[in-house]
This record gives sequence, structure tokens and C-alpha cells, in this order.
Amino acid sequence: MAVNLTPPDPTKLLPIDGVELGYAEAGIRKPGRRDLMLIRLAPGSRVAGVFTRNSFAAAPVQVCRRRLAAGGGVRALITNAGNANCGTGEAGVRAAERTCEAVARVIGCGAAEVLPFSTGVILEHLPVERIEAALPRCVATLGAANWADAAAAIMTTDTVPKAASRATEVGGHRIAASGIAKGVGMLQPAMATMLAYIATDAAVARSALEQLVHETADASFNRVTVDGDTSTNDSFVLIATGRAGGREIAAGDAAYRELKQAVVDVARELAQAIARDGEGATKFITIRVAGAASEAEAACVAKAIAHSPLVKTAFFASDPNLGRLLMAIGNAGIPDLDVARVGLWLGDVQVIDRGGRAANYSEENGARVMRPPEIGVRVELGRGPAEATVWTCDFSYDYVKINAEYRT
Amino acid sequence: MAVNLTPPDPTKLLPIDGVELGYAEAGIRKPGRRDLMLIRLAPGSRVAGVFTRNSFAAAPVQVCRRRLAAGGGVRALITNAGNANCGTGEAGVRAAERTCEAVARVIGCGAAEVLPFSTGVILEHLPVERIEAALPRCVATLGAANWADAAAAIMTTDTVPKAASRATEVGGHRIAASGIAKGVGMLQPAMATMLAYIATDAAVARSALEQLVHETADASFNRVTVDGDTSTNDSFVLIATGRAGGREIAAGDAAYRELKQAVVDVARELAQAIARDGEGATKFITIRVAGAASEAEAACVAKAIAHSPLVKTAFFASDPNLGRLLMAIGNAGIPDLDVARVGLWLGDVQVIDRGGRAANYSEENGARVMRPPEIGVRVELGRGPAEATVWTCDFSYDYVKINAEYRT
Repeated sequence: MAVNLTPPDPTKLLPIDGVELGYAEAGIRKPGRRDLMLIRLAPGSRVAGVFTRNSFAAAPVQVCRRRLAAGGGVRALITNAGNANCGTGEAGVRAAERTCEAVARVIGCGAAEVLPFSTGVILEHLPVERIEAALPRCVATLGAANWADAAAAIMTTDTVPKAASRATEVGGHRIAASGIAKGVGMLQPAMATMLAYIATDAAVARSALEQLVHETADASFNRVTVDGDTSTNDSFVLIATGRAGGREIAAGDAAYRELKQAVVDVARELAQAIARDGEGATKFITIRVAGAASEAEAACVAKAIAHSPLVKTAFFASDPNLGRLLMAIGNAGIPDLDVARVGLWLGDVQVIDRGGRAANYSEENGARVMRPPEIGVRVELGRGPAEATVWTCDFSYDYVKINAEYRT
Repeated sequence: MAVNLTPPDPTKLLPIDGVELGYAEAGIRKPGRRDLMLIRLAPGSRVAGVFTRNSFAAAPVQVCRRRLAAGGGVRALITNAGNANCGTGEAGVRAAERTCEAVARVIGCGAAEVLPFSTGVILEHLPVERIEAALPRCVATLGAANWADAAAAIMTTDTVPKAASRATEVGGHRIAASGIAKGVGMLQPAMATMLAYIATDAAVARSALEQLVHETADASFNRVTVDGDTSTNDSFVLIATGRAGGREIAAGDAAYRELKQAVVDVARELAQAIARDGEGATKFITIRVAGAASEAEAACVAKAIAHSPLVKTAFFASDPNLGRLLMAIGNAGIPDLDVARVGLWLGDVQVIDRGGRAANYSEENGARVMRPPEIGVRVELGRGPAEATVWTCDFSYDYVKINAEYRT
């Protein structure tokens, strides 16, 4: 059950000029659910992406990387749920390419202009023929207002579709950005999340778009973890159709910063939605680490807390067993950490002061701030000016249940 | 419920000349259970130890490190369960020292000759007065045959006491080694396990004992993980009373290798017992990674598998969702891993061949080898001659239950 997360209101998701979305039931793994999603882009759109750091990058990730590196245009993105097409060797790469060829035939473009994405079970062969059979129905649904339906069609163990939009003025032009994403297990994005797509109608120079996709990932998806396991299929792509008009935005421009704000806002909303809907989640946890020597160090401490099964089960139980937070900070591997300078707050309650139990801390106050479904943890390291925020969820019986029964 | 682990048979645990063990109920955290354990050593005994790498090393760890570095003799080791005396600042160090002073008074030695150990809840003050009150009863039970009782007195969430013995000939002298340990959560030892004590009556030179404690930890406790969280209180000490007689064993001797075999055998039995009794464990998993460029690399891949919540829940469910193993290998962060050379076997069934699903693999065979309570995973990396073995357990509803309810 997701934490304070409701399905997106389709009427509040902004269409992006030059982007159409379609969906279909292909029966990839289970019948009777939408599991195929197609994005068609207007000519001249630019696409940049970041992908998993897992050594076993899935076949579609390999194909995406190759096509984006080649620098050709992109006219379509095809995504299937239910099968990750990973650990499938050369046959898997061929299956991803065959999927692209089928898309190219039905929408009328080159196969090299199609990017493939997959999510689901690893080590099983992709049933390409089912995708081929469903594609005409998928194309028939293509429309600019389908962001919510598209978000639903890429879900696996997600319980709520994830979509977000922002509009802003960039260099005197009104632009919009809309995005969708899916989680929600095998999830510690390292360069990207499981699957996320954000499109804007802004006109963006190629190099600026590359920079923006990395900066956005670092400020959003790379700051979420559910279980510390980085997926083999992580992909985050950023699309700029240029249809809003105006001069192409370059990385140094004031307009770049304005656009970045809108895109990062969409990405953060999606990233937080992934943590809110983390497998078995009953609590949404925001961990902010300040006073670090570097942002990387702050993120490292925040993730050490976010990954600890003991911390996560304590949050699930609303048990202020807060020594576990101290243990997790100590396991972050920060060299020469002076524990006597470490402070920790839970909401407005100081728990740790100068490395030990805070004098004013009481079990009652600890219990009070552990109870709500949204909890803020703040750590002060006393080492420098850098900080970082990470979002995660708790660890419940249902995480075990979902992952013990996922394939059955 | 521990996996194929029964309480030690007290009659099979060898007394070590020069070592007496005592136990008592001190009511540290809960009444009606033994939670205090004292080891008294004959004069001339040597002690070496390795301790946690967690930055928040508990107060007793700090005191142990200082005393062992000072190089004075050790006449007693005092251990309490129920309270970790960690995150307790200077007051915690003082509490550990007061405990040592109390022991020194009742057994008649210097406080600096006593080493303190604690395990239990973090961030709470140690009730030293209860330890002081229980010490006379603890001393009254001191005896050479009490290894099993001592093992029971240091348990926290352990369900089975852990003790082991070996006897061997070393340089023509019969020697014995006996040890006890406790786990079983917040457990990824990094230099040592939660708490473990091994004593031998062999005569061992100081430098050889130092070397032996490190080599033994690396071959045993440092190869176990339950949940990837390194405790603040990890301590492993090795005691040599010298009472077996003979020339002092030095590190280069043939006798050193013979002694090491016996000590490592005891340590491995204890280390495996910790994984068998891991919190909520229903399966005992042995992960052997071969074909690595270095032993560190092999251990890194084995731990990436052992730490993955998705792999561990699949083992719990006996679900051959084996793509998760592939994902975990890919997350070990091995640079330039050629996935096309990776193979993986589960028991006698090859699952992954050259980076993909093995041609002969069938779901039926996968299900068959996932079912037993003891499972062997073997990975071949195809990069070199090094290998490493790691022991772990699965991840069940009961892990969540135990850790959600630990303090209540």
C-alpha cells in the first residue's frame, strides 16, 4: 500500500507538443493487463538517456546505449512490462532489435530510430511475437493526453501509476514537462531509476540535453532507494521536442536553469512516488544529511541509513530503536568520522547529540515522531558545508511477501 | 528457527586448562534470563582481539582496544547481554571501566587486567549496579566445564547457543581449542563477529597470536553475513593459556599451521552456526565464488549475492527466480566484468552459462535445488585463480517480525 500516493489525475497531466502515447495488452507474462507502452515523437525531437551501472545491463539497455551513442534521431520508444529481457545473451539483443523493427513498420520510421525498454523477470526470453501482435492496437490508442494510461501500462509490482507535470516560462516561452516512471523493487538507481521518461516541448541543444539528463538523475532518481539492489534495466530518458519554439537552450543560459527547475521538479515527484510505492512500503522516509565534507559523503551516509534492514524494520514497527540509526551512520565508511560531532534529529526531536543520546531525548518523544506515515531524519556530521537528501521507505512483512511470491 | 543447528553437547566441549567460565542472571534488560558471563584466565595467558570497523565503536570496544594496545596481562573477560553500552559517550566508557573494577575486586586482579564486552540495545545506559550485584553469583559458578552455559548467557536474539571444540597435536603436544559466539542480527562482521571467544591451551608467542586472530577472523567470521549491518560491538578474542606446555609457537613454525587449523575449524563452526541461526533463518546458504582475479574480488561478489534482499527472499520462498542472482553479481561493482564468461550453479544444476540462461536449465531442476534447507551457490567469474566462500541465510517474515518487535 503506497504512502500518501494517489493515482495521477489525467486532467492535470500536461500534453507535450510532439509526444503521443499508446498502450495495449500484449499478454507478455500475464493476460488481462496492459503491459505494452509506445511513445511516438515528432521529427526533430532530441533524446538523451542514462542507464544502469549493473554489469548485467539488459539487452534493451545495450541497444539504447548503442543507438544514443550513434547520435541518430529517435522517433519512438517501446516499453514492455513483465519480462526484463536480461541475461538472454545475443538472442535477447536480437529480440530487442526485432521489437524495434516491428515498431518501425507500424509507425513508418527506421528501426534505428526506435529505443527499446523492458522491465520484469530476468533470465527469460522475450516473447517478441506477442509484442508484434499487440502493436497495431497500441498504435491505435496513440494520443497526447495518455500520460496516465502510459504510466499504468509500464507497472510491475507498482500499486499506483506514477506521473507528474510542470509548466513554466523559459526565456519568455511557456514550456511544459511531463513524465512517468515505474519502480518499485530491485531499486537503488545508480545513474537512473528502473524506468522513467520525461518529455518537454522546450528546444534544447544536444549537449545541454545530455547535461540535463545527468543532472536531473543525480538530483532525483539517484537519491531514491527501496532495497539497495540496482536493477539490470534502469533507464531514464529525457525528451525535448522543441515545439514550444524559441532559441535552442544551451547549458550556460539562464533559460537552462529555469528549464532544469521544471524538469527536476517532475523527476523528484516521480522519484518520491517510487519510494512512496516501494514494495511493501508503509512509511515514506526523507533522510537529509548535512555538515558533510562533500555531497558524495552526505549521500553515502544517507544511503547507509536508507539501506539498513534494521533501520527499515524499526520504521515499520514505529519503534524508536534509534541506536540502529547510529549504527548505520557508523557503517557508512566515512574515514576519520569524529562521532563526538554527530547529531541526529527525527522530525523535531533530537535523538543524538555529540555522538550520544541527547539529554532531552525521551522514549515518548521518539515514539511520537516514529508514528506518522511520513518521517524526516536529519543528520549533522560536523565536517563541512555539503548536504544531500535521500528518499526511501520502510521494510515490512509485505516486502518479503511480495518478493517471495512475485513470480507465482 | 535455526537451520540444522542443535544446542552444543556440553560433554563434547573440551575444557581448556587455565580457563574457567561463569554465568549469572543480572536482569540487565529482562528478568529471569542469564545475561552475564565471566571468563577467568590463569596468570600468563595471552589474549589478542579484533574489533568492529563501525565508526561508533561501543564503549567496551574502546576500552578493550586501549587495554590490548597497552600490552598488559589479561586475567578476566566480562560480558553482558541486553545492553550494548554504545552511543553512551564518556559515561559509557566510565560504566565499562566500573564493570572491570567490580570484576577486579571479586576475583582479585587489577582493573586493567579485565576486558569488558557488551551486546544488546544501543543508546541506553548500562546498569552497572546490576552487574556489580550479580558478580558474586557469577564468580561462584566459575568452572572449566561451563562452555555451553557461557554460550547461553551471551545470547540476544540467538535461538541456539553456539560453541565448538577441537583437539589436535601441535609440535608433539596435544592441545585443545574451545570457543563460543553469539549472533544473529546487525551482522556483517568486518574484522570480527558480534561476540566470539576462542581459547586454546597451546603456548603461543605474542606476535603469532596477533597474526592468528586476524587470519582466523578472515577465514571465518569475516565470511558471514546475516543482514549486512556491521554491529558497533563486534569483538573476537583469542586466548592462549600456554598450559599445554612445549615451546612457544611462532608464526613461521609448522606448529603454527597445525594450531591454526584447529582454531580456524572452531571459528568456522561458530561462524556457520551464526548464519544457521540468523534472525528468521529458514535456509543456510553457502556461496562460493571462484575464477576471481583476487580473493577480495571473490568475497565482494559473494557478499553482493548474500546481501541482496531479493536473492534472500527468493531463497525463503524456494522460488528459482534466479535472474536475481545474476542481478546481484552485476551489482558487485567488479570493473570490466565480462559477463559472457560468468557461470552459476545451484547445487548440481547449472543456471547461468556464459552470462545467460544455461541451455539445459529447467524450472523443475531449479525448484528442486531451491527446496532443501541447505543450499550451495557456486559462481565462476572466468577472470583468475582466486576464490572465496561466504555463509549466509535467507530473509523471511520472521526477520521482519523479530526486528520490528525486538525491544517490545
